[in-house]
Amino acid sequence: MATSDRSGVTNVAIIGFGLLGASFGLALDGVPGIRRLCCTRNPAAREWALSEHAADSVSADPAEIIPRADVTFLALPLPVIVRYLTDYAHLWRPGSIVTDMGSVKGAILQAAERTVVPRGVVFVGGHPMAGTEYSGHVHAFPTMFRGADVFLCPASNASEEHVETVAGFWRAVKTNVIRIDPSEHDDLVAHTSHVQHIVASALALTILGSEDPREKMLRDAGCAGGFRDTSRIASSNPVMWREIIEFNTPAILNALDNFQKKLDVLRAEIASGDYDAFQREFARGKELRDAWLEKHMRNK
Amino acid sequence: MATSDRSGVTNVAIIGFGLLGASFGLALDGVPGIRRLCCTRNPAAREWALSEHAADSVSADPAEIIPRADVTFLALPLPVIVRYLTDYAHLWRPGSIVTDMGSVKGAILQAAERTVVPRGVVFVGGHPMAGTEYSGHVHAFPTMFRGADVFLCPASNASEEHVETVAGFWRAVKTNVIRIDPSEHDDLVAHTSHVQHIVASALALTILGSEDPREKMLRDAGCAGGFRDTSRIASSNPVMWREIIEFNTPAILNALDNFQKKLDVLRAEIASGDYDAFQREFARGKELRDAWLEKHMRNK
Repeated sequence: MATSDRSGVTNVAIIGFGLLGASFGLALDGVPGIRRLCCTRNPAAREWALSEHAADSVSADPAEIIPRADVTFLALPLPVIVRYLTDYAHLWRPGSIVTDMGSVKGAILQAAERTVVPRGVVFVGGHPMAGTEYSGHVHAFPTMFRGADVFLCPASNASEEHVETVAGFWRAVKTNVIRIDPSEHDDLVAHTSHVQHIVASALALTILGSEDPREKMLRDAGCAGGFRDTSRIASSNPVMWREIIEFNTPAILNALDNFQKKLDVLRAEIASGDYDAFQREFARGKELRDAWLEKHMRNK
Repeated sequence: MATSDRSGVTNVAIIGFGLLGASFGLALDGVPGIRRLCCTRNPAAREWALSEHAADSVSADPAEIIPRADVTFLALPLPVIVRYLTDYAHLWRPGSIVTDMGSVKGAILQAAERTVVPRGVVFVGGHPMAGTEYSGHVHAFPTMFRGADVFLCPASNASEEHVETVAGFWRAVKTNVIRIDPSEHDDLVAHTSHVQHIVASALALTILGSEDPREKMLRDAGCAGGFRDTSRIASSNPVMWREIIEFNTPAILNALDNFQKKLDVLRAEIASGDYDAFQREFARGKELRDAWLEKHMRNK
């Protein structure tokens, strides 16, 4: 790894030890030349980090961890990332690198340019396309990131070498790194992830939200594997998703419009009895999804 | 089993040996007192049925199978069920029982009342809530129905005993049997299954259908586990889904309206910046889905 102290060891701070931070700590276990410094206010997560070898040292105090960090991964909720960049900007050493795992990049890059970048702290926004519907270190696992794509968005002061340093960590945990512009990223994830959470939630609410006891019983019985999978991400953390949606509202509304247009086309075909057209659209969706799955599975 | 010939053996015809028919044949292997007669025009499926012990005898000719059947399971596409009831009504023995595995019940019951019922052939509509996004006997497996709910809709000439005979087969393959009115059934599955296929297809088309090469590359990369699951049923058979939707259009349009209303509420909350309200809705969806999953998993 690039940046390192006199001992030749790179100090990697992981701030926040929820599902992603804890999985990242586990995934880095055994990578040579690094020391993992875990920072979390959750005492159970600190204890767990040491007993599971997800970190080499732990602290509840950012002031103990941040000044020692060569590279800092902020594995925190979006508003907390912004708060850390604001409140602790003075703690990072100039020249050290800060990156994050937040699901939205525009707002985070703006916060970084306003806070750490003017102090000479290098920022590279990051977003691993990984996670589950569960939260917390207890659901972490070391192969969480394997085969996932990671998007990197360098701030104005990040050189190629800085980006490569961050990319090196992600490659060490077997991900595929992609450089992207923050607004392109936010439009992308609005489509591939955020809108799907909204749609999955609307499906769960529509289908299971009946107030009538018999309808409720029947709907429960009538839901099978299709519903289980289509609605899986409706079981995600409501606070986290509120934050993601709050941080990416314009891109999400645009992606919702695109989804709505497609749904309207399918509905109009059904309502007008043009089942041939519906079948063609459905076949095209199957073809696209099958091709994606085949490629996705081959690469992973 | 209730109905049987002089030998005490009940002849069970399974007409159609695709995913459901073939899985049903496999699931009935070893159930005492029955003889499974497989009828399919697909030579490979007939050969497979015998070699995999999914049937005790096979034929390509309905005229060879139907007259011998005490109970007939029509495991065929919806329009083919209607065609069989119409074209072969004269082949069934009066007093024998015919049932089906079609995903829509109103149109099937209407066809049965018009065709086999006037000839004294007993009809009990059936619909197992089971299946995968794959088709064909090669994807069949014996535990396909285990823990699934099966809806039964008796025609006007079906007694309690007739319904119990059909229910007995479904219980033998470890399903949970529920009696239901055909229109109640069709409204139910429009919500719990049909609309979800339309939504999943619209998502796949919206996200993967880009004509722009870089956008296409990024969208492919940006899709992860959430998309994989939310869109899984978009990979289902387009012909089958066209048929299901054609057979259940009014109930599907109504269910689409209900979904649309809920989606509009969520969109309005996001657009107006009422993230507290969005979070409450999302939390309610999670609560409903988590409760469903917990119960579903406990029962299965």
